[in-house]
Amino acid sequence: MEKTFPKKQLIKKSKDFSGWYQDVIIKAGLADYAPVKGCMVFKPYGYAIWENIQNVLDAKIKAAGVKNAYFPIFIPEKFLKKEKEHVKGFSPELAIVTIGGGKKLEEKLVVRPTSESIIYPMYAKWIKSWRDLPILMNQWCNVVRWEKRSRLFLRTTEFLWQEGHTVHSTHKESLKEVKRALDMYVDFFKNFLAIDGISGKKSEAEKFPGAKDTYTYEMLMPDNKALQGCTSHDLGQNFAKVFNIKFTAQDGKEKIPWQTSWGFTTRSIGALIMVHGDDSGLIIPPKLAPLQIIIIPILQGKPADKDLEKSAEKIKGILKDFKVGIDARREYSVGWKFNEWELKGVPLRIEIGQKEMKEKKVTLVRRDNREKSFVSFNSLQDAIKKILDSIQKNLFEKSSRFLKENTKEVFDYREFKSAMKEKKGFLAAYWCQNSRCEVKIKEETKATTRALLPDAKTEKGECVYCGKPAKNKWIFAQAY
Amino acid sequence: MEKTFPKKQLIKKSKDFSGWYQDVIIKAGLADYAPVKGCMVFKPYGYAIWENIQNVLDAKIKAAGVKNAYFPIFIPEKFLKKEKEHVKGFSPELAIVTIGGGKKLEEKLVVRPTSESIIYPMYAKWIKSWRDLPILMNQWCNVVRWEKRSRLFLRTTEFLWQEGHTVHSTHKESLKEVKRALDMYVDFFKNFLAIDGISGKKSEAEKFPGAKDTYTYEMLMPDNKALQGCTSHDLGQNFAKVFNIKFTAQDGKEKIPWQTSWGFTTRSIGALIMVHGDDSGLIIPPKLAPLQIIIIPILQGKPADKDLEKSAEKIKGILKDFKVGIDARREYSVGWKFNEWELKGVPLRIEIGQKEMKEKKVTLVRRDNREKSFVSFNSLQDAIKKILDSIQKNLFEKSSRFLKENTKEVFDYREFKSAMKEKKGFLAAYWCQNSRCEVKIKEETKATTRALLPDAKTEKGECVYCGKPAKNKWIFAQAY
Repeated sequence: MEKTFPKKQLIKKSKDFSGWYQDVIIKAGLADYAPVKGCMVFKPYGYAIWENIQNVLDAKIKAAGVKNAYFPIFIPEKFLKKEKEHVKGFSPELAIVTIGGGKKLEEKLVVRPTSESIIYPMYAKWIKSWRDLPILMNQWCNVVRWEKRSRLFLRTTEFLWQEGHTVHSTHKESLKEVKRALDMYVDFFKNFLAIDGISGKKSEAEKFPGAKDTYTYEMLMPDNKALQGCTSHDLGQNFAKVFNIKFTAQDGKEKIPWQTSWGFTTRSIGALIMVHGDDSGLIIPPKLAPLQIIIIPILQGKPADKDLEKSAEKIKGILKDFKVGIDARREYSVGWKFNEWELKGVPLRIEIGQKEMKEKKVTLVRRDNREKSFVSFNSLQDAIKKILDSIQKNLFEKSSRFLKENTKEVFDYREFKSAMKEKKGFLAAYWCQNSRCEVKIKEETKATTRALLPDAKTEKGECVYCGKPAKNKWIFAQAY
Repeated sequence: MEKTFPKKQLIKKSKDFSGWYQDVIIKAGLADYAPVKGCMVFKPYGYAIWENIQNVLDAKIKAAGVKNAYFPIFIPEKFLKKEKEHVKGFSPELAIVTIGGGKKLEEKLVVRPTSESIIYPMYAKWIKSWRDLPILMNQWCNVVRWEKRSRLFLRTTEFLWQEGHTVHSTHKESLKEVKRALDMYVDFFKNFLAIDGISGKKSEAEKFPGAKDTYTYEMLMPDNKALQGCTSHDLGQNFAKVFNIKFTAQDGKEKIPWQTSWGFTTRSIGALIMVHGDDSGLIIPPKLAPLQIIIIPILQGKPADKDLEKSAEKIKGILKDFKVGIDARREYSVGWKFNEWELKGVPLRIEIGQKEMKEKKVTLVRRDNREKSFVSFNSLQDAIKKILDSIQKNLFEKSSRFLKENTKEVFDYREFKSAMKEKKGFLAAYWCQNSRCEVKIKEETKATTRALLPDAKTEKGECVYCGKPAKNKWIFAQAY
């Protein structure tokens, strides 16, 4: 007996973007709110996306010669306090252990918000000579930054990430690594997450506390607010100096090395959800989808159902290069299943019913544009490869168009203000790089500097706020 | 110019086992002490072993239908307190966060020592009907149990593990899962870590706090002390009751489900080090070795060195099914390299010098028994596969012999006491299952019950301590 279990309808993305975001995460089974303030639970379907991200990024990281390691979650307070900007930046966000093994601790332990200050004392111990350089390490772990108002994936007290930490003998070499890591992330955002964006340097106010320079990838969400996708830091010699990292160079002289750190977080899953989803639910880019294809035999409660199921299994066997599921549950209707797998954002649906059986064909339905095709068993593998590639490409192109349509140059502050009030998006505007103008713009428009484009050439312009000479246009936006 | 960098000699395993253990970990570059009390740093070489363990176990876990997820690191104190035995067992080991975001917290947060009490409130929320069962989830994460005296890999305040948590509608089904997880671990210990051991049930005193029954794999270390390798718990309905997990069965009645949890930790790397290593350093089982083969061209500072290096690269190309490294560094002598890679426990060394070049052969040297062979380029791949298999097998057989030689039946308490004072090892002895005898035996001999063999049949015997009737022999040992 076929039954249907109607779900309360999904909030529409086109009507209530923010409500849709929370709703689709819960209904698609990606994640849930945890009974700990500010924390979330990654359910298997959401965690599987993170595992796919990890698999791709980890291979890229290793291919660059960086090796995985693991450092303690606890940082003695005295280490965190060594780099002054660093501790100032992270102090408001710390979770602190004060009791251990039933006793009040003499020295408080910070739960890592990032690991510079626990990794670099080890580097100081390990590095003696130029022979020990470069050090190229990465860790996949959890970090904790206290949040008052949390948002699933985007802003949670605990989140998951990778953090790379490298040490080099020259600034030239460390800058190359900063760029390599940024390029790796940009490639990943474009070619795997299928999200176009802008990469560039952060302002002094927006950079990582303790860094010399921070580079980032900034994306536009459908509500025209910016989301920072990753960061790659040129740490200069700041941390090396305070953690006393030195090496004997080939000429016998003692030198201070140059460092980088770079990170990519589970926040990226939030971007994936927001950018690609629609009123029916998620749309997961094929390259990162836990399930790329769902096969639905059109069961009718007849003896022929068994043949349909067999055919579904056979098709799954043919498609072993892809991640394929079959939904042959009897307790759910076909219509319910269509909705369910659309909600979950599986890129491609295969329908197989009596008609398909007779003609030795299947019906394919794309999730992104709902295009149908009718493909014979024999040419299925090639056809599907092409369709998945096309979906991946289409998602990126859509995101790319959105970015272009919502990025504009602004030379006048009134125009800037009204744009930030109405349409929002990325505004490219001259800024004199005086932090007072940056603060005022933020106060008056909620917009912050997002990035200076990496290929930005020195120009002659006037600061959009104060009118004083400005060398470059910066990207401004309201940000998550 | 070839230079050598002598390392301070490794402490001999045969002379000072405990000193050797710490020494070999540091010198082989597996790990280091962290500047946080009780914590350790996993260096890339040690972490790569954990990654290999994860890859194998994760595939086995997924093949059993268990899906990965991720739950918060923080547990509100009130949840931990719900299961009384559970909180009693873990209270002395907790790290507690009392400050968050700059404020004193109203409710203290425990850093997870294990995750039953943060996962099961979610299960209570998610499980409604028999359709939602079984739930089969696993997470790979860090956990914290406060340690006063730490030991690298074996006993550290923070360690890494996987913890599986499943929910079933019947006890029969959950028991099957308890057994499946245990069997998976036993297979992994025997066929990957190459360590023989004994699997069985824990006593009431030794079981997991809050479990109905705990099953374990117990190994003997070279000092004849036992190491617990893993645990698989039959949680019964204990947690389901206190966390209010219920489901509507197919007959419409409300029922309480049955649960399991099972875990495997980085402690296993400690066992690998202790069991297989020798006076020259580590011996890593080929199936888990970060590097299975090291090729060392016998460079002599002559123009012919270049040809040797080319040949080394060529051989590496042939051996693409294996994890192969080449050590062609000029600044280290050949002898130094031999020692270094023996210290690191790489299972097989390939030497290639002028003689080998001439005869189109290479010299192979096994790490486990130092056996040499001289193999032609053409038959290299087959020969190496056989040798690596043979090393894996040999390591297990050696461990198996050790286990047999150091396990014996004891019927007399005086004999028991003197055995525990001298040779130690596993003693199989009748025990009446009264906890008073267990406590007394521990006080007087430092030995604890390790396990009741799973195929133990009810017999007639007398408790080795009190002489009262006993149904079974239990395995006793001093434990890590």
